[in-house]
Amino acid sequence: MFTLKKQSSQSGARLGLLTTAHGKVETPVFMTVATHGVVKHLTTEELRELEVPIILANTYHLLLNPGIETLKQAGGLHHFMNWEGPILTDSGGFQVFSLTGRRIHSHNLVKLTADGVYFNSPRDGRRYYLTPELSLDMQVASKVDIAVALDECLALPASLAKVRQSVERTTAWAKRAKAHYLSLPEPKPLLFGVIQGGVSRKWREQSLSEVVALDFDGYNIGGLSVGETTAEMYEVLEWLEPLLPHNKTRYLMGVGYPDNIVEAVRRGVDMFDCVIPTREGRHGRLFFWQPDRHFIDETGKVREFYQIKNIRNSSFAQLDEPVNPYSRLPILRSYSLSYLHYLYKIGEPLGCRLASLNNLEFYYDLMALIREAIKNNEL
Amino acid sequence: MFTLKKQSSQSGARLGLLTTAHGKVETPVFMTVATHGVVKHLTTEELRELEVPIILANTYHLLLNPGIETLKQAGGLHHFMNWEGPILTDSGGFQVFSLTGRRIHSHNLVKLTADGVYFNSPRDGRRYYLTPELSLDMQVASKVDIAVALDECLALPASLAKVRQSVERTTAWAKRAKAHYLSLPEPKPLLFGVIQGGVSRKWREQSLSEVVALDFDGYNIGGLSVGETTAEMYEVLEWLEPLLPHNKTRYLMGVGYPDNIVEAVRRGVDMFDCVIPTREGRHGRLFFWQPDRHFIDETGKVREFYQIKNIRNSSFAQLDEPVNPYSRLPILRSYSLSYLHYLYKIGEPLGCRLASLNNLEFYYDLMALIREAIKNNEL
Repeated sequence: MFTLKKQSSQSGARLGLLTTAHGKVETPVFMTVATHGVVKHLTTEELRELEVPIILANTYHLLLNPGIETLKQAGGLHHFMNWEGPILTDSGGFQVFSLTGRRIHSHNLVKLTADGVYFNSPRDGRRYYLTPELSLDMQVASKVDIAVALDECLALPASLAKVRQSVERTTAWAKRAKAHYLSLPEPKPLLFGVIQGGVSRKWREQSLSEVVALDFDGYNIGGLSVGETTAEMYEVLEWLEPLLPHNKTRYLMGVGYPDNIVEAVRRGVDMFDCVIPTREGRHGRLFFWQPDRHFIDETGKVREFYQIKNIRNSSFAQLDEPVNPYSRLPILRSYSLSYLHYLYKIGEPLGCRLASLNNLEFYYDLMALIREAIKNNEL
Repeated sequence: MFTLKKQSSQSGARLGLLTTAHGKVETPVFMTVATHGVVKHLTTEELRELEVPIILANTYHLLLNPGIETLKQAGGLHHFMNWEGPILTDSGGFQVFSLTGRRIHSHNLVKLTADGVYFNSPRDGRRYYLTPELSLDMQVASKVDIAVALDECLALPASLAKVRQSVERTTAWAKRAKAHYLSLPEPKPLLFGVIQGGVSRKWREQSLSEVVALDFDGYNIGGLSVGETTAEMYEVLEWLEPLLPHNKTRYLMGVGYPDNIVEAVRRGVDMFDCVIPTREGRHGRLFFWQPDRHFIDETGKVREFYQIKNIRNSSFAQLDEPVNPYSRLPILRSYSLSYLHYLYKIGEPLGCRLASLNNLEFYYDLMALIREAIKNNEL
């Protein structure tokens, strides 16, 4: 499933190849977020033009809408959303827990038990039940390439008691997910397990050893980018890096800005997903390269290799230059920054589309340059 | 500028060829509406894929935003909006008059004088002044292919006194526009004049004779689709058809549904513009052909050759069939109606894009079939 092609001698950075039922993926890789089975504003044709290698969708959202029956009728998520490349689905745990504490009519939306989690759709109040087995069944029925075991994700900061409970439950659910997985007939997706533990070294290492003992196809580092500092996040990665098996992918969930990605790659991470390029794009914030695209300065620190600029800024109003003269997308070469500024000014959705494309292309250029840098012993 | 290629022996329908600085346009033609210099949700690349022959933008909207300075800086509207095909701009009269009666802080937004019209932007209150000369200057500075003389557009029903005033003012302004046009150096756009007169035969014929006497490059039939019945609109077209010069294009402004277009073509109209395909698309209403695409039944009446269906209807929820299996656009062949239904259900803007494309393609297929029917003596 995963072949380690190169281990950097200077850092934890690695080159690898992940093989899925819908194609091979070179790592380090960024997964474009298609939470609801769509990348907001974009067609899958555009994702192919950008050579997006793999996308992420979310079990929780798809369970609510369109629902499992529609996905089964369509023969799976690939056919439904018109995407032939690999798909990873998150287990739904993060979204369910993000509802924790939310109340409608003095009724908690989420009720957590040892067995699983009951929740009400915030949309229509309909009641759902998610267990490790049901989450996996949903992902299998969607015919995705990579499924993720249900975990309990905590917001940070959290008490040690909460961290402990999250780790214990995540391990217990990982065991059930794995047992259920083994009982399922082929073909079935790869199955990744999630490591929790907040910013506690003890609980991170405990979670890692318990989850790794279950022998998943890859390991998600969960519960980061949820309230801790960047320094804390990097420290957690440093604790985990030497303990993670070298022959399995490591996926840092929900991260991040380009410098976060470079730092995490140096700490051994292979896979990322994040809404930042598309969400920032929709808000009119565009990623641009600095002239020098090298990531590391002479002291070994990550340089400021990019800028985020707000296209609404009046400096763009009459800037008759292409959005990106080097883009592989003709529309980013032919539309001007001045016009994009204008589209945001009049609230035209085409602006969100162009900005999302610009930012996704930036992220895929970033990942290609990161892989190139590892190959050239520059990372 | 305009070559009449065929006059139907059965009706007023005509085939023609309109030559502009940015290409030739076969008529009858439908102009896609890009009011603000953008077709909502779509790129000009997509318009090219749809073989859109000519688009319409609006002087009033472009004057307010991005403003004449930005358009001049960009070297004209074509370059600004990344469109190499022909552009016609409306004079701005319709939009200004649609503000008539609107008040902000007990201040009328529009003040009409014999000389021109003062108006305040409803966006920021900034004061503008539009005269026949200034409207034309704006269109010339935008370097469009076809400009339209400023007119006074009336909402219907209107008193005969109002109709008379509108016709007299429209003629006076047409004279000034034409005089100003003659004073301008080449290159300059073609200039169309507008015929008003409400649903009064006397005033329609009066307006026509006065405006035609000024010898414009084409004639807009204005002030229709503004409150009158369809029967009244067709009757006005029947009055005008024998009186309009045969060697000039006739453009029915703001019309309409496909059956309105067929009926107007039979009454000698060559050009149309309308927001219907894109606006209906954004609202999830899709145009579909009936199996038999013939327009006229054995009694000579226009058949129900199309249907408009709301994609939100639950009958589409699990309909795993392409949006349009015969589309020239790969995305309309590959995305399913079920998925499009889902996109509207979750409020995803990509849905508006696909529906707009579907409906525009329907309109361009319609116009091609209309031209084919005229050629084959079927209309």
